[in-house]
Amino acid sequence: MSDRIRARYLIETADDPMRAAEAMAGEQSSGTFVAVPGETPELKARAGARVERLEAVEDVWGPSLPGAKSGPAYHRCEVELSWPLGNLGPSLTNLVATVAGNLFELKQFSGLRILDIDLPDAFGERYPGPQFGIAGTRRLSGVAGGPLIGTIVKPSVGLTPEGTASLVDLLAKGGIDFIKDDELQSDGPDCPFEDRARAVMAVIGRHAERTGKKVMFAFNVTGDLDEMRRRHDLVLSLGGTCIMASLNSVGLVGMVELRRHAQLPIHAHRNGWGYLSRHPLLGWSYPAWSKLWRLAGADHMHVNGLRNKFSEPDDSVIRSARSMLTPMFGAKPCIAMPVFSSGQTAAQAGDTYAALGSADLIYAAGGGIMAHPDGVAAGVGALRQAWDAAIAGVPDVVHAQTHPELRAALEALAR
Amino acid sequence: MSDRIRARYLIETADDPMRAAEAMAGEQSSGTFVAVPGETPELKARAGARVERLEAVEDVWGPSLPGAKSGPAYHRCEVELSWPLGNLGPSLTNLVATVAGNLFELKQFSGLRILDIDLPDAFGERYPGPQFGIAGTRRLSGVAGGPLIGTIVKPSVGLTPEGTASLVDLLAKGGIDFIKDDELQSDGPDCPFEDRARAVMAVIGRHAERTGKKVMFAFNVTGDLDEMRRRHDLVLSLGGTCIMASLNSVGLVGMVELRRHAQLPIHAHRNGWGYLSRHPLLGWSYPAWSKLWRLAGADHMHVNGLRNKFSEPDDSVIRSARSMLTPMFGAKPCIAMPVFSSGQTAAQAGDTYAALGSADLIYAAGGGIMAHPDGVAAGVGALRQAWDAAIAGVPDVVHAQTHPELRAALEALAR
Repeated sequence: MSDRIRARYLIETADDPMRAAEAMAGEQSSGTFVAVPGETPELKARAGARVERLEAVEDVWGPSLPGAKSGPAYHRCEVELSWPLGNLGPSLTNLVATVAGNLFELKQFSGLRILDIDLPDAFGERYPGPQFGIAGTRRLSGVAGGPLIGTIVKPSVGLTPEGTASLVDLLAKGGIDFIKDDELQSDGPDCPFEDRARAVMAVIGRHAERTGKKVMFAFNVTGDLDEMRRRHDLVLSLGGTCIMASLNSVGLVGMVELRRHAQLPIHAHRNGWGYLSRHPLLGWSYPAWSKLWRLAGADHMHVNGLRNKFSEPDDSVIRSARSMLTPMFGAKPCIAMPVFSSGQTAAQAGDTYAALGSADLIYAAGGGIMAHPDGVAAGVGALRQAWDAAIAGVPDVVHAQTHPELRAALEALAR
Repeated sequence: MSDRIRARYLIETADDPMRAAEAMAGEQSSGTFVAVPGETPELKARAGARVERLEAVEDVWGPSLPGAKSGPAYHRCEVELSWPLGNLGPSLTNLVATVAGNLFELKQFSGLRILDIDLPDAFGERYPGPQFGIAGTRRLSGVAGGPLIGTIVKPSVGLTPEGTASLVDLLAKGGIDFIKDDELQSDGPDCPFEDRARAVMAVIGRHAERTGKKVMFAFNVTGDLDEMRRRHDLVLSLGGTCIMASLNSVGLVGMVELRRHAQLPIHAHRNGWGYLSRHPLLGWSYPAWSKLWRLAGADHMHVNGLRNKFSEPDDSVIRSARSMLTPMFGAKPCIAMPVFSSGQTAAQAGDTYAALGSADLIYAAGGGIMAHPDGVAAGVGALRQAWDAAIAGVPDVVHAQTHPELRAALEALAR
């Protein structure tokens, strides 16, 4: 069991790669640009970060990012650094300053991206991880197997509380498992949280009495800390089963405090993810970044979806989703339920299951449900049929021959 | 007085720029990819974001970011969007989801960067802004005019509490105004916060008794919320005058809560800034991003420095520093003291003052002090002399003729 923190990076530098890697290690530990009196060899041996591994990837002829020292060629390499836990202790906030921090501004690099992190068990002992995870989400939503079929309130903003409740009524009638607020709607004056929560939960409660199954609605509690706690308490008191928070809005302290307070699953929304990741030689990979939030207590984490409407390629989506289902620590796996969304329809179910090898996920569709020619119930039904086929290993077009909702969905998509 | 939120962006798109700008407005308000029943013209008029302005900048022949829709040319434009305050209310956390959020992942854009934001007065009424700012910092540090001459504890990590206190002793003897913990050191097991704070404040108190001036030490309290509050209280009880937090580590909820609790100035550290800004067509400009933290309560904000050791160009540094000194609201200016650092020496004082037109700043140097041939006191003295010359409009080389510390510093830099 190592007591060192490890981080893996993709770097691009015109410098000698080993010298550049050592500059990274120095900048993020005991190194200084001008040697100072206290910088003894003993101190460096104790507190210095180490270059554990350096592996050439390829050379390119121009820099990916501006502001870097130039050279005839730019070397892309994978680098692994490690730090003694004694430098910072098992602290998520100080981990961010250590593994990321000033690194991305160093002149030596025309590209620097953090690919993954690997933490000592002390982090798993210190932070709670998800409180509900997959099993708790299945229990609260009454979905024993297969994905939770979900959707998002649209239009994102502009609906009144009553308008939102009407939409929820339509979706609940259609047999949906999961609905989430849009990340743009938390407690806007034009759709106050309390009114919305009361209106929505009245509808959900009514359907639950009828069907015995309570639709899980992720209420967006994103706000200042007192607001988030108050909104959580309201949802709990109304019999709600999920809250949602925007990670880049609330930050780590917000998430850690929300998890401490929460008695409901936390649906973690990654909006803003693009500015952390859109350039392939800058920022964070999702497997690295999401570990911070899984440890802090996210129960559900967004991973985008195959053939999504955004700019992310499919292999990145699947890598993200797989990482959610991969344990972080032996004693505390911190498995979060991946949430697929963005342009998802019946057509991607087979490929998603084949690539992930699991149906422990939330499959959220907007148009993929609402645009079904036979209405919402048929839209939800078609998604479920598509997933039944995927799990059974039957091609969707074959399954569609005996399942009219799926057939109509696939036909509409082919038009 | 407008009640709309405004944000200005630099975009790059192969699409028709106005159509792309309207897609931004739709994505971040009431738009949907597939029209839904509730999306009425009345709702769009009330809740939709508006394209306020679109201005062509230049065309380029290749995309800056991957994953975008391609075309024969990529159009760079400045776009201004606005939102009704009623969509979200004066909430900083929900503001982030609204003005940034999913935008950066849209396929229509091969570049998207947020340049500035402009908020309705309701935000200024809701959030506190800096508690101490420039005046409070001058009062607590006993520096009535000119910049606070500062430095950073180096090596960043590895020193014991006693080692840190010895370094502080050396610097206080040398006449320093301001010292900060490195962002890598908060409460590491090898240099516990409490021991360090006690050792450092004992030294600072002893010098204050001698000189009547208390060195301002920014203790890095970055951590979980309870830890930050406890560390703040300890610093306050020991007679300390400043705390520091890493913004990208604690997030907005952390900063808002710290400000609510604090009775000391908050030195806001931007480490991680590189991953938000290093690519010129992605992420956040500092004037936009720093407004979030100024409103939340940051008293000091890092802006890098002229001819710094990092990749940021000088014009960007000065634009950041100027924005700190530009009021956000008439009734609540939220002026934060800019902190210059990274490779700063006596040589940049004149250019910094000429470009900024103000000496209301912290000027932090490492080697610029420690590497002075005549020691720390001469290093601090040389920086003060360089700033005296800058403020008086006298070239540093002229001032150096009658000021030996400055002369020695400039000679050493020229070697």
